[in-house]
Amino acid sequence: MSDRREFVLLTHDLDPSATIHLDDLPGSGRADLVARTVTASMLLSHAVRTDVRVHICVAGPYTVTFDGSSIRHLHPDERSTAALVGKALRAHTDVIGAQPTPVSPGLSIRRGGLQEVLSALPATATPLRLSRDGRPLKSISVPEHPVCVLSDHRPFTDTELTTLRPHSAPVSVGPRILHGADAVTVVHNYLDTAGYSEY
Amino acid sequence: MSDRREFVLLTHDLDPSATIHLDDLPGSGRADLVARTVTASMLLSHAVRTDVRVHICVAGPYTVTFDGSSIRHLHPDERSTAALVGKALRAHTDVIGAQPTPVSPGLSIRRGGLQEVLSALPATATPLRLSRDGRPLKSISVPEHPVCVLSDHRPFTDTELTTLRPHSAPVSVGPRILHGADAVTVVHNYLDTAGYSEY
Repeated sequence: MSDRREFVLLTHDLDPSATIHLDDLPGSGRADLVARTVTASMLLSHAVRTDVRVHICVAGPYTVTFDGSSIRHLHPDERSTAALVGKALRAHTDVIGAQPTPVSPGLSIRRGGLQEVLSALPATATPLRLSRDGRPLKSISVPEHPVCVLSDHRPFTDTELTTLRPHSAPVSVGPRILHGADAVTVVHNYLDTAGYSEY
Repeated sequence: MSDRREFVLLTHDLDPSATIHLDDLPGSGRADLVARTVTASMLLSHAVRTDVRVHICVAGPYTVTFDGSSIRHLHPDERSTAALVGKALRAHTDVIGAQPTPVSPGLSIRRGGLQEVLSALPATATPLRLSRDGRPLKSISVPEHPVCVLSDHRPFTDTELTTLRPHSAPVSVGPRILHGADAVTVVHNYLDTAGYSEY
């Protein structure tokens, strides 16, 4: 089983200065999708995956990070999770320099996007890019420190692919195109079962 | 790949006469969880799984059914899906006899619960009960017509287990206890890939 897992969600409609309307999450930069990706990454039934970190890259660029080792107040429903994302985004005006600005326990925001997230990874990390035409998930060795990069409802941009390609192997979770949160769940299951061998 | 898939969610806090508050889905009989189970069962990225039916068993007993072959207005976010569930529940007063009452395209409600859902299955169906101590999902043959039964945030009751045991094999999706919607996603992936063999 992997010791540490990270997920990086590249958003394309989320602006740090925009308001997240809790009664219209789909109309708020697809904050519903962002919330589901966070909860799929971090929550088990009645428990938090303490070994997981989730990075949400938004325009600016800024990155919101949820850290499972210290997160509090994270619930399975979209609305409360989207409220946490909104709280972190509003704190972008407090960010100074390149340091993460704490928002609440286990939640922070910092300047920088995909490039900065990749640059901060240790040498033991294995970035994986979720892609329909990648190698079958089942065929890869279970990494010690997987870092899965996925896109929101839009495909990766050419710029993102240029940044990602030298660093990441494309991996497919199956023949059907899933929502990002569901792809996260499939990856977790592969890691939880040590490659479909431990149940 | 299986030809047809059904999912049966047994709820324990959902009353057909209760109001679903769209601003408080967790406090409305865990309608957030119900909505996520529906969308995990029925939606791909930008598409509906037309071969899927989802049955939500609630107190009464009544059963709300989503049919992927004809469903309309189903979106990935919890709020709009919970609104559909609420609309179906409100129609329980229109139910006459044992017939399903249409609510909107692909959405219906009828009298009866788990026992009636199981009784209505054809002989080709293979009921599977999602359970921590079941056989590994990977070890079962891919059924032609799998029917996965899962519980909400509460364990199966003794009565439910008594009803289920003669009809269903217990199946485990892994060593960690997942939210029901995530277990549905794992089962779909197993079926989509024909047992982790086709990507």
